[in-house]
This record gives sequence, structure tokens and C-alpha cells, in this order.
Amino acid sequence: MAVVLASHQYGKAENRVVRFQRDTPRHEIVDLNVTSTLRGDFADAYLSGDQRKVLPTDSQKNTIYAFAKEGPVGQGMAKGIVAVETYALDLARHFVDETGPVTGARIDVDSYRWERAVVSGREHDHTWVRAGGEVRTAAVTVSGSGPDRETHVVAGLKDLTLLKSTGSEFHDFLVDGYTTLEPTKDRVMATSLVAQWRYDATCLADGFDFDAAYDEVRSVLVGQFATVHSLALQQTLWHMGKAAVESVPGVVEVRLAAPNKHHFLYDLQRFGVENPGEVFHADDRPYGLIQAVVADDTAPAASLAWER
Amino acid sequence: MAVVLASHQYGKAENRVVRFQRDTPRHEIVDLNVTSTLRGDFADAYLSGDQRKVLPTDSQKNTIYAFAKEGPVGQGMAKGIVAVETYALDLARHFVDETGPVTGARIDVDSYRWERAVVSGREHDHTWVRAGGEVRTAAVTVSGSGPDRETHVVAGLKDLTLLKSTGSEFHDFLVDGYTTLEPTKDRVMATSLVAQWRYDATCLADGFDFDAAYDEVRSVLVGQFATVHSLALQQTLWHMGKAAVESVPGVVEVRLAAPNKHHFLYDLQRFGVENPGEVFHADDRPYGLIQAVVADDTAPAASLAWER
Amino acid sequence: MAVVLASHQYGKAENRVVRFQRDTPRHEIVDLNVTSTLRGDFADAYLSGDQRKVLPTDSQKNTIYAFAKEGPVGQGMAKGIVAVETYALDLARHFVDETGPVTGARIDVDSYRWERAVVSGREHDHTWVRAGGEVRTAAVTVSGSGPDRETHVVAGLKDLTLLKSTGSEFHDFLVDGYTTLEPTKDRVMATSLVAQWRYDATCLADGFDFDAAYDEVRSVLVGQFATVHSLALQQTLWHMGKAAVESVPGVVEVRLAAPNKHHFLYDLQRFGVENPGEVFHADDRPYGLIQAVVADDTAPAASLAWER
Amino acid sequence: MAVVLASHQYGKAENRVVRFQRDTPRHEIVDLNVTSTLRGDFADAYLSGDQRKVLPTDSQKNTIYAFAKEGPVGQGMAKGIVAVETYALDLARHFVDETGPVTGARIDVDSYRWERAVVSGREHDHTWVRAGGEVRTAAVTVSGSGPDRETHVVAGLKDLTLLKSTGSEFHDFLVDGYTTLEPTKDRVMATSLVAQWRYDATCLADGFDFDAAYDEVRSVLVGQFATVHSLALQQTLWHMGKAAVESVPGVVEVRLAAPNKHHFLYDLQRFGVENPGEVFHADDRPYGLIQAVVADDTAPAASLAWER
Repeated sequence: MAVVLASHQYGKAENRVVRFQRDTPRHEIVDLNVTSTLRGDFADAYLSGDQRKVLPTDSQKNTIYAFAKEGPVGQGMAKGIVAVETYALDLARHFVDETGPVTGARIDVDSYRWERAVVSGREHDHTWVRAGGEVRTAAVTVSGSGPDRETHVVAGLKDLTLLKSTGSEFHDFLVDGYTTLEPTKDRVMATSLVAQWRYDATCLADGFDFDAAYDEVRSVLVGQFATVHSLALQQTLWHMGKAAVESVPGVVEVRLAAPNKHHFLYDLQRFGVENPGEVFHADDRPYGLIQAVVADDTAPAASLAWER
Repeated sequence: MAVVLASHQYGKAENRVVRFQRDTPRHEIVDLNVTSTLRGDFADAYLSGDQRKVLPTDSQKNTIYAFAKEGPVGQGMAKGIVAVETYALDLARHFVDETGPVTGARIDVDSYRWERAVVSGREHDHTWVRAGGEVRTAAVTVSGSGPDRETHVVAGLKDLTLLKSTGSEFHDFLVDGYTTLEPTKDRVMATSLVAQWRYDATCLADGFDFDAAYDEVRSVLVGQFATVHSLALQQTLWHMGKAAVESVPGVVEVRLAAPNKHHFLYDLQRFGVENPGEVFHADDRPYGLIQAVVADDTAPAASLAWER
Repeated sequence: MAVVLASHQYGKAENRVVRFQRDTPRHEIVDLNVTSTLRGDFADAYLSGDQRKVLPTDSQKNTIYAFAKEGPVGQGMAKGIVAVETYALDLARHFVDETGPVTGARIDVDSYRWERAVVSGREHDHTWVRAGGEVRTAAVTVSGSGPDRETHVVAGLKDLTLLKSTGSEFHDFLVDGYTTLEPTKDRVMATSLVAQWRYDATCLADGFDFDAAYDEVRSVLVGQFATVHSLALQQTLWHMGKAAVESVPGVVEVRLAAPNKHHFLYDLQRFGVENPGEVFHADDRPYGLIQAVVADDTAPAASLAWER
Repeated sequence: MAVVLASHQYGKAENRVVRFQRDTPRHEIVDLNVTSTLRGDFADAYLSGDQRKVLPTDSQKNTIYAFAKEGPVGQGMAKGIVAVETYALDLARHFVDETGPVTGARIDVDSYRWERAVVSGREHDHTWVRAGGEVRTAAVTVSGSGPDRETHVVAGLKDLTLLKSTGSEFHDFLVDGYTTLEPTKDRVMATSLVAQWRYDATCLADGFDFDAAYDEVRSVLVGQFATVHSLALQQTLWHMGKAAVESVPGVVEVRLAAPNKHHFLYDLQRFGVENPGEVFHADDRPYGLIQAVVADDTAPAASLAWER
């Protein structure tokens, strides 16, 4: 046998870039956590410690901050705020096109939401309150050059915590010797959703509005969670994924991971107190974890889009 | 010398109570993290292992969940949502009045915000999205009985992250041999605020509206952060505290702790790029930590209100 | 186009199982965090809410706890402590073999280390101190039945934080217009290692000692980090991976992910103080992230072993 | 009424100082998280934004790093490693004595443990593995000058997770209408201990060995947890505190906070399986929280030592 370097990549993780637009008194803010990952011919760095093909992660960091000024985000902010997806595309293309040994790049971005502070009923020009709630994500992959180039954009969100206090059942499930769960016709259903959706090449055309697409998919996900009368979290996920694929032209695949955040009805009968679905203990662990991939069956698969 | 038990207390921490109101199709949610702390004559449990005066923390847990159904929260939800402060008062009084060895009780509550899911432009009846952002807090202390009874209510918030992109200076500070900081006339100021305000007995009167008081204090804190042209985070905190004391009758003391979450201007000059206050690195550690206590000087101090 | 359910799986995450052996006065402890993931024919639960093929995650939880008593861990503890890998294998096989619709199962286990409390110089029989440091991991996948059965065991560790105060260089790297990093012949190198290694079928034979294999691989990883004079973290990882594959017969592939936890020399010259590599600031973010896969080139690839 | 600034303080939090001793081939490491808090006459900064008496937190940071080289830690490392308490004392005295408006200073230090990497059975000269487990803490307060000077040193630890699999009972407790807990003669007892102990002036004498004192107190705490047959966590804490005060001359007060990390016996009877105290679920929340202050009754109280 021979021991070989089968695969490798490297980059700079968690660059906390904050970008303001201050050209008018009404400022804008974009708050990001950016990670670069480069792929290519860096084997010598591993095998013999030869760094001649290695662009330092420190240089990647500098590039990430510089592009926040000069790249599409900068241009965009003059006319509002351009989506993080275009900023990530610009960075990925830069590394692949401008750095010799780099044959592929992936840019991951988390985007934190801020809301304008409200003062005397009006939104303030240069003060914000961090919104909490879900984090918007983007993962852009660029690989190869010329006709072999592959470009993938995956948008998404995480930490979107949803709860419904009725409209959820779970019964008639498989029973084995370790099954003690009682079936229920009415339960609390809650999750902290991770959703990622892949666009096809539609999104690379001029004028594609990533922010509008994000808003639409998020809205559809929340809407299905709310309105589907659920016989299982699985069923709810399917409807969420299906509606997302059908919502925005260009969305061809949706991946969903949903912890079933259990809420247990607290037994108050012991104290002579009725508890008709009103008081619950929100448990931490363990939790169910339900996953689904929903796709347009006419779209070619794109495993590279999902490789971390 | 003799080694003595100088002080002791115990309780049940982090009970994750979720309470729904389901009397009409439009449900309500209250989502809490509740901690009880009992004080009294429990020395025997320490000194000799004698538990006869010790109410188990498990019983405290049961009480916390039961009161979510029967206590003021329950009553209140029939007509909307009653504030967590009244629920905490009820619990504290119960432990002191109904449990022989208990002479004092403190109830701490964190309250998580949920917003109704919006479906087709309308707020949904029984589905919510967790709001993130700040956590509302309450700390109620009841001690003694009869004429010696002390009752304190401290409301507050934590994790309120605020940022302003201009309107903040820092210069003309003290300089010593270790000072290298450059003065600035324009910087980013950001913090993740912890604020706690103590009410006097005004709040114990029937009809005191804790939710309205909370909203007003929060609004004033955000407003001052936004509108005070800041020469230091210290100055901003003073104005926030002063305005809070003056905002709601009954607020007599405000305690503020504010990390100075540093945003460092990224040096792009090295790459021939101007950066006039637009691209920053949001640093993690270290951070400044500024604290202030602002009070109405006619209100008697109440150290017990703050004892954890 | 048609929207289809392209893929799905579900399970119970983060079951916190603690198992004691108490047959003699000298007790033993195994402290685990166990996650089950089932694959198979559950599409009806998604598409129509039909649960008849769905074994509840609650039943999976019960099984996980029950097997901690009856399964190999239980048997093993009579004669010491059997490795978590065998416990995970037993669980995975049970789900695939005993649950009709289940065609594949993955069991992930985190294992926390405890050390016996030392009292008067002797290890105590039934008291432990949690060790902290790295967490041992295992990921077992069983898929298919009969001659088509695939069985994979991936062992590993995470949060193994390593640091060397010399013996690390970084220079002669690629320079572009965004490069400002100074080359160095002596720096601090630190990482928080994630390592996972795949065994081939060797490990399924009776008597294979997973604990001894773990100890050996861990020892080799630490040894290489310490003794390789490093020209880059990449080079160090290669030597760690190579040595791991060569260390234990049956280890055929190692995956390494190593954050470069930057330690910046603090500039004390400004205060007239020399700082020859003695005082550093340990920074949080961003950090380099270096990854490598090192493999025996005669071993067939096994992508299923790595699918989460 | 007048609204007044009742109290204030400020400082630099979480300076991540790593200090090496490299004078011989066998290096030493000290890894700290240092927070400074200054008290004094800074009211003008709050009331009018006048910074002339404010030493920037950035200068405090520089001082913290510089003293890691020049101060007692530096001197000490030439002959081994001097305790963090002396480093903190030096910093606190510096701020009070050398900075005009500063009348008091508190220095908090967390100290992380590293163990030498073992290579071929021998401890390596310049490579370490982070130990995990408990974090050692120190809190030094210096206030006033001349004969009014107060100096306090509080040592401690946090995150010391202890567990015993037998030797713990809980029964004959107070029962009220909300009590459903079953008494037990044998349970698992586990906690994640926070302990802080105050030294009197004994510790300020030349030659007081803070490291030896720490080791002795830690050893006594663990020893009592292990060997006291416990009728309640309260009783165990009392014996731990008492033994700590009696262990090292100069320790006059110990404060203990101990979450009761519940381990629930898993009901396997439902599956026909006996579970005589062997398989447990380690629950997250809620948890009991037991606190105690144990003191030498001849030592004067020192509330300033504990003020954060």
C-alpha cells in the first residue's frame, strides 16, 4: 500500500465584516460572517512544506474585507443593498481567476439582520437594533474555467424557530417492543429550521433579485409550516420544500433539517389541576431530527454545490 | 476559630415553562425560563443532612408549572397576557407564605419573544416565529412577613444589541505610558446592553401595567442611545439611565452594563483603497465594559432587590 | 417538471446516556451522547402523512437506553468497558434487521472522558472528575442486508487542542496584491483538531480492540504534531494523517480539519519592552481552516461511511 | 427628586494573554483570560462626556499584556511559574498607584490548564494539550491608599464537574401539595462546581505559595465530595467548605455554588429489563442550584472582595 493525500482544501473562516453605506445621512448596514475555502494544487504544502502555491489565509482575509468596499456590495449600496450572493460570487471568481494554483473556491456567508431603531415613532438614520431570529446564509461555489466552469449558488437560513400550538397530530405509527409513545391528535409542534435552496443558472442572469427570492422562499416556508394540518413533521417538511421549489423560478432543490423540539404537556392532574394543552415543559435533549431533500426532477443534480 | 455556615440558599434553576392560551381560535404564547431561590432556615440540611425543613427543588418545579396554569398568568391570559412580574410575585409570595421554613424567595424569569407568523399578509392564529433579539428579564424578591415584609421587583432586558454608525467620538482622554490609542471624532459604537430597573412600591398597586412600563423603558433606552451625540459610552449610558428613571413613575434605580463591542476600521489603504468609515472588522475579545447605576436620590436603597 | 422527494432520513439526536457498572465496589462509568439516523422507505410519512412505516424517534430513544444495559456495553462492562463502537454497531444492526422499513442506520456517539477522583493519593471507587479536553467520537453505518450489506466504522476525536511554542515556520508563500503577511521562521502553532479515521473490515473481527486503536491513533496524532518541524500546518496535518494510517492495521482513511488558532505576538516595543516570542494575544476570529484526507490507496473508497 | 449617578466603574474584559517562558529548551506556558475593572472619579465622563480622567480601556489592555512580560509572571517564569494571583496583584496596585483618578481596581483572571504532550513516553519540551476540565480563577481587589488600603485575594475554580455513582441519599424532606418526588437511599450525585475562597492578609506575605494553596483546596474539595456519605448536596457542600477553610492557613471564607445535575434512572422495566442503578438519562434543565458560604467566624467580613 501507499499512503496518499486523497483530498485537501484550506481557507479563512469567520471573517466578521461589517459594511456601512454612508453616502447620505440615512446610512445602511450589512453585517456578515464570511468564510473562504480554496481548492487546487496545494499538495506540495502538505507533502514537503513548500508554500509557493499557497495564498496565505491572511491574504484571503484582506481580500474579503477589500471586496466589501470595492466589489458588488459597494456598488450596490449606492443604490440600496446588493445581496450577499453577488458579493460571494465576486470573491469566488476572483480567487479562481486571479490566483494561479486555485481551481475552485467556495464562499460561505452568514448574514445577520438589523432593524432600524425607532425613535419617536420614526426609523433612525444611523442606529440599529440587532434583530435576532434566523440567520440568512449563502454558499457559492465556483470551479474550473472556460467551458468547464461550474458555478453554484445555494441560499438559505438557519435558526428559524417556528412553533404552532395546534394543528399537529402524530399517531398510527410503527410499533415495536420498545415503543411506549402515546398517539396524539393535538400536540405542540416546534422546530429550529435549517433550510438551503439551490438556484440553477437563472440566478446568474443580470437583474436576478436574490433578496426578493430570499424573502419569497422564507415566506413560503413559514406559510406552509403554519397552514399545513400536520400528521407528522415529515409531512410538514415535504410541503415546505415543495412550495419552496414552486415559489421562485430558479429554485431547483431544497434541503431541510428540522429538529423536533419537544414540548411535553406538564402533568398537573397530580395537583388536581386540569391542563388541556396549556402548560408545557420545553425540553432540550434528546430531540427528533427530520431531514428531507425536495427537488425539481428535471434539474440535473449538482453535488459540488453542497460539498463543504 | 470556628468554621460556620455563614449563608445559604437553594432552588430550582431554568424551568422552561411554555404557556398557551387556547380559549379562542386566536391562541397566545408565553415562553419563560424560571428560576426559584429559597432562603430560610435550612441549616440542618447542611450541617447534619436533616431535610425536614427542605422543600425539594422538584416540588418547586411542580409549583412553577402549576402556577403557570392557575396563577395570574392563567387569569391574565383570558384577557390577553399578564406580565411575568405578577406571575413571579405570586410564586415568591407562595413560597414565603405557605412553606414554613422559608423566610425569603427570589424568582428570576427570562421571557422570550415570539412574533405571529405572517401568512398571506395576515397574522396567524396559532403559529409563531421566535423573535430573537433581547430577552426580557424579571427578578422578584419577597422577604419576611407582616410589617417586616420587603417586596422588590426588578425588570430588565439583556442581549439588546445596539449599533450606531456615526455620532460617537472618543478623545481628550487620560494618557499614560501604555497609551497608544488614537483619538477619534467619528467611530462606530456598538453594545449588547444589560439593563435592570427597580420599581418602588408603585408597581404593587392594582392595575400597574408592567408590559407598558417595559415597553416605555426599552423605548427610552434605545432612543437615548440613538440620539445622544456621544463623547463616550459612559456618557451615553448616563443619559440612558437618567431617561429611564424619568420615563415611568415608579422606576427609581437603573443598572446598566454595556460591553463596548469594538469595530475596527479595516486598513485598505495598503491596497490603494479608500475606506472612509465604511468597512470594519467586528472584533470578539477583549472588549471594554462600562457600568453605571443611575438612581432617584429620594428613593431608599434596596440592596436586597439585587442580591442573587 | 415534477417536484419530488429526492432523499430523506430521520432519527433521535443527542440521547445523553450514562451507564455505570456497579457489580463490584469499584464502579465504572461510560458517558455518551448518542444520535440515531434511520434510512429507508418512509416516503409516505412525507407525502401523505402516513406513519405506518415510521418507528417513532421516541422508540429509538428507548432502544438506545435499553441497549446500554443489555447490549455489548452491558456485557462488556462485566469485564471492563467495551468500546462505544461495538455498542453503536449493535444498535445500527438492530434497527436495520428488526425494523421492516429500515434499510440503513447510522449511529453517532460522542464519548466524554472521566477520571477517577484521587483521594489521599488513591483513585476513588465511585467518584469521578470530568476530564474535559477532547471528545471521542464514533460513527457507525449499516446499510442493506445479505450479501449487499455494507458496514462502516469511523472513529475519531474533536476538540483536541494542541499548541507548540516553537518548531513552526511559515514563509515563501504565494504573494498577490492583497498579501501583507510577514514571513516567519518561528511562530506559535495551535489548533483544535477534528480527526476521523475509517476502519476497514478488520475492525469487525472478534477481538478487535477499539479502545487500544483509539489510544494508538490519538498518540500518533499528538506525537506528529509535536515532533514534525513544521513549515505549514498543512505539512503537519499530512504527517499526522500518514502516521495514523500507518499506525493501526485496519485504519485506511483519515480526515483532518484543523483551525489555525492564531496567536499574535504583542507589540511591546512601543513601551520599550522586548518581546522575543514570549507574550501573545490569542485571537478568536477569523482563523485559518486547513483540511486533509489521507488514505491507503489500496483501500476502496466508502462514501457511505461519511454521509451524515 | 434628582436623578444621580449612584455608582460606576469600567474596564477591559477578556484579554486573552498567552505567556511563554523560552529561556531554556524546556518551555513553559501560562494561558489567561484577564479582565480589569477600575473604580474612581470618572463621573465627568458620564455626566458631561469629559474624558480627562479616563484611562482608555485600550491602555489597560496594553498594560495587561506588558505586565505579562515584565511583572511578576515574567520574573517568576525564570524560576518556574509564579501564580496568577501575584500578577493580578501587581496589575491592580499599578492602576491604583500610578493612575491619578483611580481609587480602586479589580483584576479577574481565568487560567486555562495545559498538559505537556507525551511523545514516546516522555513529556515534550514545547508542545502541550489543553487539559479541559476546571478553570482556575482569581479575583484581586485593591482599594484606597496609605493606611486605608484594602487588598483582597479570592482564588477559585469553576466547571469542576464531579460525579459519584453511589453514596448519596435524599429522603425525609418537607412535603407539600406539590411534592411528588420519591425519596431515595441511593442515587447518582453530580455537579459542576463553582468555588471561590478568600485569603486573609497571610497570602500577601513573601513566599506564600498560591499554587500549592490552590492544589490543596482543590484536593480537599474533591476529597470531601467523594468521601462524605451524602444525605443531601447541601450537606456535601458544607463539608467541602469546612474542609477548605481548615485546609490552608489564610483561607477564611469559601463560597460554593453547585448545580444538582440530575441523572434520572431510565425505566427499562417496560421492556422487561432490570435497571438496578446502571442506565441513566443525564438531563439538562431544570437543575437544582445549591449555594453555601462557609467562613472562619473570627475573620472580619470583607464584602469588597466579592463586589464585581
